[in-house]
Amino acid sequence: MYVNRHYHIYSTVRWSRKPLFNAALYSAAIIVLYELTDIPFSLPWQPISVIGIAVAFYLGFKNNSSYDRGWEARKIWGAIVNDSRSLAVGILSLPAAGVSSEWKKTFVFRHIAWVMALKHAMRKRKSWEHESKLENLVFTPYFREEGLNGMDIELEKYLKSEEAQRFKTFTNIPIHILKAQSLELKKLEESGGITEYKHVWLQQLIARLIDSQGASERIKNFPFPRQYASTGLFINYIFCALIPFGLLDIFTQSELLHYWLTVPFSTIIIWIFFLVDRIGDYSENPFEAGYNDVPISSISRVIEIDLLEMLEEKEIPQPYPVENGFLM
Amino acid sequence: MYVNRHYHIYSTVRWSRKPLFNAALYSAAIIVLYELTDIPFSLPWQPISVIGIAVAFYLGFKNNSSYDRGWEARKIWGAIVNDSRSLAVGILSLPAAGVSSEWKKTFVFRHIAWVMALKHAMRKRKSWEHESKLENLVFTPYFREEGLNGMDIELEKYLKSEEAQRFKTFTNIPIHILKAQSLELKKLEESGGITEYKHVWLQQLIARLIDSQGASERIKNFPFPRQYASTGLFINYIFCALIPFGLLDIFTQSELLHYWLTVPFSTIIIWIFFLVDRIGDYSENPFEAGYNDVPISSISRVIEIDLLEMLEEKEIPQPYPVENGFLM
Amino acid sequence: MYVNRHYHIYSTVRWSRKPLFNAALYSAAIIVLYELTDIPFSLPWQPISVIGIAVAFYLGFKNNSSYDRGWEARKIWGAIVNDSRSLAVGILSLPAAGVSSEWKKTFVFRHIAWVMALKHAMRKRKSWEHESKLENLVFTPYFREEGLNGMDIELEKYLKSEEAQRFKTFTNIPIHILKAQSLELKKLEESGGITEYKHVWLQQLIARLIDSQGASERIKNFPFPRQYASTGLFINYIFCALIPFGLLDIFTQSELLHYWLTVPFSTIIIWIFFLVDRIGDYSENPFEAGYNDVPISSISRVIEIDLLEMLEEKEIPQPYPVENGFLM
Amino acid sequence: MYVNRHYHIYSTVRWSRKPLFNAALYSAAIIVLYELTDIPFSLPWQPISVIGIAVAFYLGFKNNSSYDRGWEARKIWGAIVNDSRSLAVGILSLPAAGVSSEWKKTFVFRHIAWVMALKHAMRKRKSWEHESKLENLVFTPYFREEGLNGMDIELEKYLKSEEAQRFKTFTNIPIHILKAQSLELKKLEESGGITEYKHVWLQQLIARLIDSQGASERIKNFPFPRQYASTGLFINYIFCALIPFGLLDIFTQSELLHYWLTVPFSTIIIWIFFLVDRIGDYSENPFEAGYNDVPISSISRVIEIDLLEMLEEKEIPQPYPVENGFLM
Amino acid sequence: MYVNRHYHIYSTVRWSRKPLFNAALYSAAIIVLYELTDIPFSLPWQPISVIGIAVAFYLGFKNNSSYDRGWEARKIWGAIVNDSRSLAVGILSLPAAGVSSEWKKTFVFRHIAWVMALKHAMRKRKSWEHESKLENLVFTPYFREEGLNGMDIELEKYLKSEEAQRFKTFTNIPIHILKAQSLELKKLEESGGITEYKHVWLQQLIARLIDSQGASERIKNFPFPRQYASTGLFINYIFCALIPFGLLDIFTQSELLHYWLTVPFSTIIIWIFFLVDRIGDYSENPFEAGYNDVPISSISRVIEIDLLEMLEEKEIPQPYPVENGFLM
Repeated sequence: MYVNRHYHIYSTVRWSRKPLFNAALYSAAIIVLYELTDIPFSLPWQPISVIGIAVAFYLGFKNNSSYDRGWEARKIWGAIVNDSRSLAVGILSLPAAGVSSEWKKTFVFRHIAWVMALKHAMRKRKSWEHESKLENLVFTPYFREEGLNGMDIELEKYLKSEEAQRFKTFTNIPIHILKAQSLELKKLEESGGITEYKHVWLQQLIARLIDSQGASERIKNFPFPRQYASTGLFINYIFCALIPFGLLDIFTQSELLHYWLTVPFSTIIIWIFFLVDRIGDYSENPFEAGYNDVPISSISRVIEIDLLEMLEEKEIPQPYPVENGFLM
Repeated sequence: MYVNRHYHIYSTVRWSRKPLFNAALYSAAIIVLYELTDIPFSLPWQPISVIGIAVAFYLGFKNNSSYDRGWEARKIWGAIVNDSRSLAVGILSLPAAGVSSEWKKTFVFRHIAWVMALKHAMRKRKSWEHESKLENLVFTPYFREEGLNGMDIELEKYLKSEEAQRFKTFTNIPIHILKAQSLELKKLEESGGITEYKHVWLQQLIARLIDSQGASERIKNFPFPRQYASTGLFINYIFCALIPFGLLDIFTQSELLHYWLTVPFSTIIIWIFFLVDRIGDYSENPFEAGYNDVPISSISRVIEIDLLEMLEEKEIPQPYPVENGFLM
Repeated sequence: MYVNRHYHIYSTVRWSRKPLFNAALYSAAIIVLYELTDIPFSLPWQPISVIGIAVAFYLGFKNNSSYDRGWEARKIWGAIVNDSRSLAVGILSLPAAGVSSEWKKTFVFRHIAWVMALKHAMRKRKSWEHESKLENLVFTPYFREEGLNGMDIELEKYLKSEEAQRFKTFTNIPIHILKAQSLELKKLEESGGITEYKHVWLQQLIARLIDSQGASERIKNFPFPRQYASTGLFINYIFCALIPFGLLDIFTQSELLHYWLTVPFSTIIIWIFFLVDRIGDYSENPFEAGYNDVPISSISRVIEIDLLEMLEEKEIPQPYPVENGFLM
Repeated sequence: MYVNRHYHIYSTVRWSRKPLFNAALYSAAIIVLYELTDIPFSLPWQPISVIGIAVAFYLGFKNNSSYDRGWEARKIWGAIVNDSRSLAVGILSLPAAGVSSEWKKTFVFRHIAWVMALKHAMRKRKSWEHESKLENLVFTPYFREEGLNGMDIELEKYLKSEEAQRFKTFTNIPIHILKAQSLELKKLEESGGITEYKHVWLQQLIARLIDSQGASERIKNFPFPRQYASTGLFINYIFCALIPFGLLDIFTQSELLHYWLTVPFSTIIIWIFFLVDRIGDYSENPFEAGYNDVPISSISRVIEIDLLEMLEEKEIPQPYPVENGFLM
Repeated sequence: MYVNRHYHIYSTVRWSRKPLFNAALYSAAIIVLYELTDIPFSLPWQPISVIGIAVAFYLGFKNNSSYDRGWEARKIWGAIVNDSRSLAVGILSLPAAGVSSEWKKTFVFRHIAWVMALKHAMRKRKSWEHESKLENLVFTPYFREEGLNGMDIELEKYLKSEEAQRFKTFTNIPIHILKAQSLELKKLEESGGITEYKHVWLQQLIARLIDSQGASERIKNFPFPRQYASTGLFINYIFCALIPFGLLDIFTQSELLHYWLTVPFSTIIIWIFFLVDRIGDYSENPFEAGYNDVPISSISRVIEIDLLEMLEEKEIPQPYPVENGFLM
């Protein structure tokens, strides 16, 4: 997530330099051919503009959906923050007087481990996501290191070693951490550390965390349907391919203007349409370890800090750093 | 569900070859007639473009609604994943110490059977769905086999034979599995295996599963209203039928361009509008045993794996395979 | 609800024959007048197309809202299905061992009576709905008979006669059936047939049914606001009234085309805009005993079948029939 | 709320006669000036139509939001209906056998008083609402009388006099009625009239009513943001101000048409845009004691009737009357 | 939040004087250059209008999203109002008879302190918000004073001094106030002041407040994604930069009109597009201590008044003042 007021125009141009360059090249090639061969390449603008409106509709739909996916992802992790706090508050205030603060600490630590495990699970690359290698994230070295280090360091910070090993044998690690929490609560009740009624309420909080984990996995595992994405791309390509022909028609009709103006003008229009398309495209997958991700590393850190402060721990980690304007 | 980054343009063209071919034929026929008879067939472009904008609106509405239906279907099955996990965790951690792990296993197995029964019920063809025969799904042989094998094999894997037979006498099989689960819980309480309070909580989870089943059936049984779908189709046809006449008018006005250009240009525009229409059309019914389905077979497999791992079973099935880019 | 893939174009034209005919007549009248008087009736097309875009926006908004109303109505009845099943499952599995199956059957029967009473209450005509007389529903004779027979037959099937008489003295029959169910549950607890905790949970299910009934009444009793509907109609009329004048202008400018082409071309455009308007208009009220209704008769039958099968009754009614493509 | 099928076109024209008249006057003034001075006032139509499209977008956004506000308001009052019924059913069926029906009646009456107090609180004028004096509501004399009579009559019908006096000393009357209900329930439990568990459930229903009251106040007290409303108005004005200049340009280009046609044509387009704007504007505030209000008086009456019938009272008031097509 | 019917056009122009002035300057510069050099600067209008439509779509999307963010923020604070009232009602009516009103008062006061702490936390500036210094809010001196005074005064009004000091050592102050409330409830139960069941219900209310706090922080900390905002800005700039060239083309084609008209006409169109963009931009962050904020100071005051009146305190503060039309 970028956290400054606006991207710099220069970095935007650099980010989209490939379509920009291709657009210029393509437009120029057509005009050169026209210059050389004198074949009237041009096409009427009116039907092209109808295609343009259809493309604009489509891009609007795509951007809207991408935005909604991102916002829903953010809501889900907001719910994880809330339920983590509620769980910790509940663990601190509901058990009987005799329950040791050591037990409470172990429980809350295991919960932090769940957050960390889920964070790493969300960042594994899917076949429809951009092929962004972690190594290339030069603007966010802190985050890159976190990603390259992998889950183990963070798990072992909050779990006993043998417990961490056991969890790693499962397909879906976080769900088994939550199952372990349930069994801990069961044991607590059996040993008289909590009443049945309070036990079930904590169990309901666990069920809410299961819901949030499932919802996060749903967004991760169910892409913006590829048939929509591909159709949008294809009709955008067709529209952009037609633009120089249409502009050539307009510019050759004018007595004052030279048809070479087709090149910069086509380039700008094509660039705008590709920029809008790419913005949706890069915002579609909110957990792809890219710069526009929902900042789940930083959200996890917020949970970490809040819960450690509630335990009145001494060593509280720093908030997640903003690196070159990005918060991951 | 297609899981690669983009459909190949070639496979998209092949998929939509019928409207593409018809569009070319239709446009050519008109131009040939014009050539032969010299009757001025052309129509002014301006009012056609107003129709085009209205059609674009309509297609936008249709695509939006189809997308929402698919996304809601995915959410419902996400809820089924979550509640299945919560139910299994609850069954493992809430009953009294004396309840046998055999009983727990039978209960969780019956739940997996419910998932399988619901999956198959969702795939039965409805009168408004595409007539896609399972036999024709050549790109996904694994899925085709699952469909052709039918529900029985999977039910008998997780149910005792006589129980499976009994369920099959009912109109709606899954709901009677859930009713059976309720009666099991009742017996458990009566035999002292669970307290009343925990019993009711598990019963509430059953009620949530009843909700999810009902919601899934709602999407299956209530199509995108046919009056909207048909109107969209008709006005799209009318618009496309007018396009060559309008383009002919434009091309004959131009001195440089030859009116035969009407044919490729019409073909492209008609193709774009039909492509956008078909994308919505094929995404409308998220459970029609087609390539764009919400992948409920794979989601069911995820539940199967998670629950079997929770039971610490030995034989865990493989995740559902991706076949030629499709996950079903 | 129409359940085939597409309406036949012929039946759509027949359904909208009145606006189609009027459009043709109106356009022809203008051209005849022009022919006779030679007054230049024509108006420029450009501003008319701006009005057309505004109208397209408005119709889009209207269709969207109508669709949402229908979808919400379907969701509410989906919730009624779910909660009916949950209630029946609860009644079968929660009371104490001594409660007679006769009592349970009476309770579930009374619930089916509630469904039937609500169904009939939803079909009473409102002042803003279309004046579709039940007698005219020639395509759905089964449904017509159900409507003409009225509520009494169905109530008496599931209620004792004196109870049915008593309910009919109230303004809102279904709500008093639910109140009666509550009092039955209260008596059950007082006689020791159910524990307090389970009693309250069933009472909460009753509260959810009260919610669904209220939500269904809300959609029935609160129309798509008439100020929006009327404005949409008026600006659509104005737009359509201007179309022939605008087309006349275009056709008279052309040297090749004859201005008599204004007539078919106007007719088509006017027809398209009226068709889109009428589709929204006829989908606005999802319970008006019309062909595009949410199929609450068939949904009620689904509940009836499921609940009777749960009671292990012998005589199970048939699913609701599809008549000429309509499911009501 | 208007409850007939469509507003009469005459009443719509009368309602919007001011913008219609101004539009005609303004257009005529420009043409007269043009006639007299011969200065070429005209402006090109093309850029004006781009402004027109932007304005159409904006109006669409505004109408959509207004509609959503109205629909949410209706949902909230629907929830009030449902929870009122659930509360009454609960009060009748949950307390112990010894609780007097007198106590129950007093409680339900106090609840009706809450509905009435909330209804009147919602109708107090806010600084951003239309300055519609109650005295001017000539089409709905019954409602006007209710409004002018004020809250006191209706409160005293359902509250003891001293209790009504005490509530009137608070800033927010309805919330203190709900607090009083809570304290009543507390006393009931302390006197053994209800078990703790049922007490808390009723208390939760009170909390839902607090939610609905807060939601209703939220819509009342938080207007459609004035910055959006004002911007919409300003750009609509600018667009409408430019229309006659643009049409003059078009009409003067035509050889057949006389530029005086600018006047009626401008008037129609301006009227359409103002009409669409005003519809949103007048639907923005669903509780402003105006003709397009959500009909909370009639909804309150529905609650009144249902609850009195549940108490088996003798005197049941009539349903709220429809006056000249309006239900308030 | 502005609370009058409409912003004055003068204050709107003043607020947007910078883009207005720049637009005029830029257009004039181009025309002067054209005058001096006679180079035909003009560009064809048709492709520019396609860009314009794409920009209109984009601005519509942005305004819509900003509006939704504001509305969701308002809903969250509405929920805070509701749950605050429910909590206070619960604290007054649920504990045992022996619990002192002093304890209740301390608890409710601590809750008011939470509201105040959250309000101040929401107003801390974020890197993507407008750099509006509190000192510059000349139109709302009362609010400016509140902001400059900071949180401490308001906290100490409702907390004991040592407690306030302790809270201030934490990163997130409000969450630790809620944790303290939980521990208070725990102590209350341990001392026999409340039953377990009622305790858990109040604890659930605390969990809902934790949810609302988290949701409010989510909107505060997750901006409208900067990639969307920046793209919108860039394509708006490009469109506006092209406008004078396009208009010059149109005006030079006309024989009647002078090309100097390009200046005022460009200025108006550019101003409209920037105005619409800025409206979204300034409404994006609903808690940035700016004039268009969701009025959380005034909402907090409503809670303060309601809760103090419930405690039957003598000194009730005044409602928050409207200052120059703004309620903060």
